[in-house]
Amino acid sequence: MRRWFLATALACTVTALAVAILIAASSDEPSDKPHYNKAGELLRPENYREWIFLSSGLGMNYSPAAGSHDMFTNVFVPQWAYQEFLKSGGWPDKTTFVVEERGAQTKGSINKHGNFQTTELMGIGVEVKDSGLPDKWAYFNFDDNKTATANPKNACFSCHEKNAAVEHSFVQFYPTLQPVAKKFGTYREAAEDVQ
Amino acid sequence: MRRWFLATALACTVTALAVAILIAASSDEPSDKPHYNKAGELLRPENYREWIFLSSGLGMNYSPAAGSHDMFTNVFVPQWAYQEFLKSGGWPDKTTFVVEERGAQTKGSINKHGNFQTTELMGIGVEVKDSGLPDKWAYFNFDDNKTATANPKNACFSCHEKNAAVEHSFVQFYPTLQPVAKKFGTYREAAEDVQ
Repeated sequence: MRRWFLATALACTVTALAVAILIAASSDEPSDKPHYNKAGELLRPENYREWIFLSSGLGMNYSPAAGSHDMFTNVFVPQWAYQEFLKSGGWPDKTTFVVEERGAQTKGSINKHGNFQTTELMGIGVEVKDSGLPDKWAYFNFDDNKTATANPKNACFSCHEKNAAVEHSFVQFYPTLQPVAKKFGTYREAAEDVQ
Repeated sequence: MRRWFLATALACTVTALAVAILIAASSDEPSDKPHYNKAGELLRPENYREWIFLSSGLGMNYSPAAGSHDMFTNVFVPQWAYQEFLKSGGWPDKTTFVVEERGAQTKGSINKHGNFQTTELMGIGVEVKDSGLPDKWAYFNFDDNKTATANPKNACFSCHEKNAAVEHSFVQFYPTLQPVAKKFGTYREAAEDVQ
């Protein structure tokens, strides 16, 4: 009887573990991490609209001269990376950030002032934190392309390196993450004062 | 032997089901549905920043007169409701929509033009689709309050009833949902033409 009990208990434990692993594997986490082809190009992240929204801007521009065309910029990170940030105030390795550029329109349907977002997708910019890369952080742009090579280091990289409030990320523009980073002491206050 | 096998198989099946149910119960889905107190007031949705982002606007205004203060408006729906919409082009019963109103700022850190979102949370508006309510759809506002009574029907309700592209929801302003609703034939094209 005792032997039967032990054998059954063992079998059930194995079954329980198998079910738990199957359920975990069915989540979409793996596709939320950066993937590269054999040439080292980043594959375009596909499901980012189901990630966590950090913030959006309209016509944000870091140059003294105004831009010619205002776009909305929506920023997303994967659920798992966001949860890690809430626990530590920092980004885990393999975090992917997507900034989506979308058209802005004033008059349409019942709207008469201000701007709403349109179906015109101008492109996406992608930032990855990946310890397997030469400089750990890298920046990519996608229009209709499915793969992209990293941008030169003197473009996005150097600006993020110099001006971002948390590591290479512009948490000064992500309202709900600011208090988290400040609580964990990972927020560089000086990043707010750059003019 | 055969009896032992059957008993073990049954025990394992029960264990597997129990594990699956425990894992399912640990998700946050239940809190993503509308909850009311005994007085029938809606409880404030708390975790909406972890829901699906539909779109944001800046200074959107439906009146001929411009507003005095431009705010960003971010719209979220629960993951489970979004997944149902993708499969049908319509919203399931118990869907909650949150529109978050946030401050806008131009000069700050390295930004020189346009607008980014600030930590100033002005309030949230909530729309629920709930077959248990007298009119199925109801609208609520939260500042610091934890509970709210539904707004009078001649406010949000009548405008949504008349002008929304899909049921009571302004899918004409949610770029990624427009093609879904059009595919399923649930999109009211006339809602785009209102002036």
